[in-house]
Amino acid sequence: MVLIYKTKPFIPFKTTYSKFVLLNMLKIVLLGTGNVATHFFHALNKADNVSVIQVFGRNLEELALFKNKTQTVTAPMDIKEADVFLIAVSDSAVSTVSQYLKNKKGLVVHTSGSVPLNAISNKRKGVFYPLQTFTKEKKIDFHSIPICIETENANDYLILKELGYSVSNSIHRISSEQRQKLHLSAVLVNNFPNHLYHLAQEICNENELSFELLQPLISETVDKIRFLTPMNAQTGPAKRNDVETLQFHIEQIKQPLQKKIYQLLSESIKKTYEKEL
Amino acid sequence: MVLIYKTKPFIPFKTTYSKFVLLNMLKIVLLGTGNVATHFFHALNKADNVSVIQVFGRNLEELALFKNKTQTVTAPMDIKEADVFLIAVSDSAVSTVSQYLKNKKGLVVHTSGSVPLNAISNKRKGVFYPLQTFTKEKKIDFHSIPICIETENANDYLILKELGYSVSNSIHRISSEQRQKLHLSAVLVNNFPNHLYHLAQEICNENELSFELLQPLISETVDKIRFLTPMNAQTGPAKRNDVETLQFHIEQIKQPLQKKIYQLLSESIKKTYEKEL
Repeated sequence: MVLIYKTKPFIPFKTTYSKFVLLNMLKIVLLGTGNVATHFFHALNKADNVSVIQVFGRNLEELALFKNKTQTVTAPMDIKEADVFLIAVSDSAVSTVSQYLKNKKGLVVHTSGSVPLNAISNKRKGVFYPLQTFTKEKKIDFHSIPICIETENANDYLILKELGYSVSNSIHRISSEQRQKLHLSAVLVNNFPNHLYHLAQEICNENELSFELLQPLISETVDKIRFLTPMNAQTGPAKRNDVETLQFHIEQIKQPLQKKIYQLLSESIKKTYEKEL
Repeated sequence: MVLIYKTKPFIPFKTTYSKFVLLNMLKIVLLGTGNVATHFFHALNKADNVSVIQVFGRNLEELALFKNKTQTVTAPMDIKEADVFLIAVSDSAVSTVSQYLKNKKGLVVHTSGSVPLNAISNKRKGVFYPLQTFTKEKKIDFHSIPICIETENANDYLILKELGYSVSNSIHRISSEQRQKLHLSAVLVNNFPNHLYHLAQEICNENELSFELLQPLISETVDKIRFLTPMNAQTGPAKRNDVETLQFHIEQIKQPLQKKIYQLLSESIKKTYEKEL
């Protein structure tokens, strides 16, 4: 475990890779080669107090992208001991991957918003959940990403806190239940708005309108809630119960499912402001 | 009408207010004192080629805020002649206010996304629709706001184009039908996402989580679609048809209406990506 070396002098030794590994560095094995794993790898690689000593993956093509930067392994038996095993694979694979680590002494953590802590069978387990949407093609500033941490004991929490602050300024200890609620909230503020953008883009395309026209509005919608609560920022026909406009909009929507979405969201907005009166 | 003076020299004359009015300036009467009217007034007041010669309003308290900046009138008979009468009142009042202008020679335009062009009974009529959400408490950079213009003849279009470029860099001639679709799209990308933010904030409040935690995700969601189409930016359980997570989320939502919203939006996302396969 790393923290006990804190007072010792830094004694670097050279690995076969370009980065020096210090004795009091957190040694990380990253499990996964996908989207989240890749973003984590780049962020961790920039940190001074962390060394990703291995990347484990089954997808050889994806794994190859890490080859010049650290050791890559594809057989579970080749996984080294580490301070933290960071599992960044699809939700359904977390449990299987954690099985490969059952004899390890290090702390095994997954990075999922929805997988239970107990999906990991190791004695020392945790969650290291970055509350963000990642896309392979797009770089992201990791420092502002909230990292939500769960562990079963205080010492493991300190390790994940240190790991967290190595890549982000926003570290939060949360419970399993809070993580579930955050994950649900993330769907509400990311997945659903993005889908609504998609539906709007379809309407634009069908009517020879550039989707670009909506970009300032989309940006301002988000900018507003830095100054106002969403409750106070709400505008539009549903809030003012403008029945005529609501009806006219519903008539314009062709797809029954989309009509229903419009109706239900409008109803929910109306209810929110009825309460207020 | 203004454009015919274009080649004449600028001959300023002093009004009783601080601003010089040039002969080739567009003279504007602003009708309305609310949110949109106020934002328009500030933007127009900064423009070199425009002079807001009067503000008309019924709400004396709101009207008083314009008093030191231009002439304010509350009786329809006191409304002066102008190049453009800019009606920025609530949708339901557009028609009534336009009645006050029936003897005017100037171009009468409203600023609404949903009111038909024919709500204005004047011979010369148009629409000057700023595609943005306005809040009184929050300043906004007008230059990036798309202004969507409708007129019945080319000359009036030129006037509104000139007026548009005096406050914005993004001027677009659209049809009535396109404006209807833009207004519907605006609800999809502004009203509905904002309401989803509100629902997420409620979940955060109930679970002692700061809504701030979701801000980086909300920002990134919007930032992403500057580089990717919303179609390609989509992530989440509905897209990957992760039935277990979807079910778990629905169980966590207490309100039946919100459960339905979750189900319908997820269904719509699933359908979108089924099509793709």
